[in-house]
Amino acid sequence: MKLTTADQFLKERQNPTEETDNSQLDQTVLNIISKVKQTGDKALLDMTEKFDGVRMDDISVSEAEFAEAQEAVSDEFTVAIQTARKNITAFHTNQQEQSWFINQTGGITLGQKVTPIERVGVYIPGGKAAYPSSVLMTIIPAKLAGVNEIIMTTPPDSDGKISPYVLAAAEEAGVDKVYKAGGAQAIAALAYGTETIGKVFKIVGPGNAYVARAKKWVFGDVAIDMIAGPSEICIIADETAQARFVAADLLSQAEHDEQARPLLITTCRHIAQAVKAELSRQTERLERKSVIQQSLAQNGRIILADTLHEALDVANQIAPEHLQLMIRQPFENLANITNAGAIFLGDYSPEPLGDYAAGPNHTLPTSGTAAFSSPLGIYDFVKKSSVIHYSESALHAISQDIIAIANTEGLTAHANSIQIRKDEDDA
Amino acid sequence: MKLTTADQFLKERQNPTEETDNSQLDQTVLNIISKVKQTGDKALLDMTEKFDGVRMDDISVSEAEFAEAQEAVSDEFTVAIQTARKNITAFHTNQQEQSWFINQTGGITLGQKVTPIERVGVYIPGGKAAYPSSVLMTIIPAKLAGVNEIIMTTPPDSDGKISPYVLAAAEEAGVDKVYKAGGAQAIAALAYGTETIGKVFKIVGPGNAYVARAKKWVFGDVAIDMIAGPSEICIIADETAQARFVAADLLSQAEHDEQARPLLITTCRHIAQAVKAELSRQTERLERKSVIQQSLAQNGRIILADTLHEALDVANQIAPEHLQLMIRQPFENLANITNAGAIFLGDYSPEPLGDYAAGPNHTLPTSGTAAFSSPLGIYDFVKKSSVIHYSESALHAISQDIIAIANTEGLTAHANSIQIRKDEDDA
Repeated sequence: MKLTTADQFLKERQNPTEETDNSQLDQTVLNIISKVKQTGDKALLDMTEKFDGVRMDDISVSEAEFAEAQEAVSDEFTVAIQTARKNITAFHTNQQEQSWFINQTGGITLGQKVTPIERVGVYIPGGKAAYPSSVLMTIIPAKLAGVNEIIMTTPPDSDGKISPYVLAAAEEAGVDKVYKAGGAQAIAALAYGTETIGKVFKIVGPGNAYVARAKKWVFGDVAIDMIAGPSEICIIADETAQARFVAADLLSQAEHDEQARPLLITTCRHIAQAVKAELSRQTERLERKSVIQQSLAQNGRIILADTLHEALDVANQIAPEHLQLMIRQPFENLANITNAGAIFLGDYSPEPLGDYAAGPNHTLPTSGTAAFSSPLGIYDFVKKSSVIHYSESALHAISQDIIAIANTEGLTAHANSIQIRKDEDDA
Repeated sequence: MKLTTADQFLKERQNPTEETDNSQLDQTVLNIISKVKQTGDKALLDMTEKFDGVRMDDISVSEAEFAEAQEAVSDEFTVAIQTARKNITAFHTNQQEQSWFINQTGGITLGQKVTPIERVGVYIPGGKAAYPSSVLMTIIPAKLAGVNEIIMTTPPDSDGKISPYVLAAAEEAGVDKVYKAGGAQAIAALAYGTETIGKVFKIVGPGNAYVARAKKWVFGDVAIDMIAGPSEICIIADETAQARFVAADLLSQAEHDEQARPLLITTCRHIAQAVKAELSRQTERLERKSVIQQSLAQNGRIILADTLHEALDVANQIAPEHLQLMIRQPFENLANITNAGAIFLGDYSPEPLGDYAAGPNHTLPTSGTAAFSSPLGIYDFVKKSSVIHYSESALHAISQDIIAIANTEGLTAHANSIQIRKDEDDA
């Protein structure tokens, strides 16, 4: 992992990165979307054959498949996801928003009405890996928000099966329907509907480049959670940090994929060296060693900061997905963090704790988007409506101001709508 | 305005509308974005000459220009926007969100930290019309959210000037900087920065097709509020409604542009006829008569519903930007509204009241997106970070569950991050 100073690191970041040319990818994705819009289920079945290598007649997951899944998973797994569900539910329940109303004298009532989104689609990646944790993290907040129908899609394996872990987690979380469909075609099906899959109003969940790009394209026709980039961890460590823990946590992020960015910012040269040694030592015994080595070499950095203040400033500029404060006084420095998806405080709050079981959501803003976005939450599954009631006298009292602005904007029919009520009163 | 039954109307909507081919527009917009990224201010100045017909040296609005604007506007206008600011501030203050923390026995602290977005860009259309109300509606919630720097861009007229009404409103709302730049080039400048304009993290505000499409393209690199479509009003009227008022309110929406959609749903054939007559009568004396006539003819509908229940159901399927309930019991029926940007209750709460002065935001989800989006609010200008602290013993208590899920997902470095802490404890 390369060592750098804070200044060097920030300069590196300022240099314009190469433009990614997505035109080829976009062409493929737009073709897929167009086919699904035109031929619905047929397009899904054809593409599942092409991309997932299995010809199916029916994309719905049956009751029997759910039952099989429950049989197939271990008791240990079932206990673990029950614990996770309990903690995720407890945390997210605090995000519940209430409708509110204000009454003002003179006959004015103003308010904000909160209503769940009616139908939501959850995309869960498939292929070789199974991600039951993503199932819990996306479905539970939608369920708590009061979403009426939660639809999940995930690509089948070459036998036309879905991972039992994913199905068991979906059932535990309270999914309404699960369909076997993956990639950009699944996103198109959720956004526009097919004979089998009902159109949803919002699509959430992680996915590969095709999924991410398809989400960008359907955005506007439906809502999406975010366009996820590579996973990141940024650890701020001072001389009190334990190098073995720091290294283990950097590695947990590095194993995701070669694009993952494990970053350490430290005020202590000794810690920098000790973490480096630990990284080599621990990597050796890890299964995903080759992915980890590439991630560390290509995207990993150890950044030396002169002061904790500088370390925090660099972290805020990075706006990392995960930020661990492994410093003497983590709570005391929370006020100085302005940009981060999730903040982990102290030696015993490693990032995998947040990934699986602590309760907060693991669907977090990546690639610096924590500067302007939030973790997935109940607030993603509701929308607000303003409510306005004025009495006759209250409207008359404010008429002149409305007419003045309307006339300034040249919108005389707006002024007319007020004037016509005023005339009646004056008559 | 065409008369239709609810069934006919809903069937009409189900038929797939023609695909809009945006490829030409996209090419233009992507070229503009690319030029601004490459040559910054120079590109802006060149394009302002090309599109707005004025060659400028400096795009910053000076103190002197602000002072001139204050001189130029009438006292009546100043009083009106002060009233509007007061009401907008009062309403939006209720949207303030607090950070929260939960302490659990055993040494667990979980929380959600709310932080304002640091820099925000506001786009305000220019050209022939001036929209001071949009200035207030976008800047005030950003200011209340605690945004550190609010930057506004708006295209200059052919003399290189900005409307004094727009500048006076921007000052009243508390803008930090105003720049003379319009169109897709302004969106690119806000998203990626130029020598003069600092990069922002979120772009909000209305705009034409170029602006809307540019916002779609920069989305992901920055946040955006929404991609606005044509303006809509949907009025539900029963036999107690006053036809003159209903007609005036439909017309206030129709004057926006030819694409605006004025919709009336009524349970009363007599009201349908009376509103039709009033529409003709009132249109005659309105300035924007020709726009209104086109909007009514092309996009207007009077929908006859058999029952109030059916009327409400149709409205929920439309998910209108503005919904007026001009019925006997508007408050009693609020619970039955699931999709609407803003809901206006009763005879004296016409849509222009909400556009200018009541307090709620007039930046609302259009084209059915109220099914999944909210009015612009303080919540658009903050983001959340999760906070996680576990004590050593709390982590050990949950270790087995985390390791079980991590192993299921094949992420053994995640398991290692937990195991390494457990081993230390066991040793």
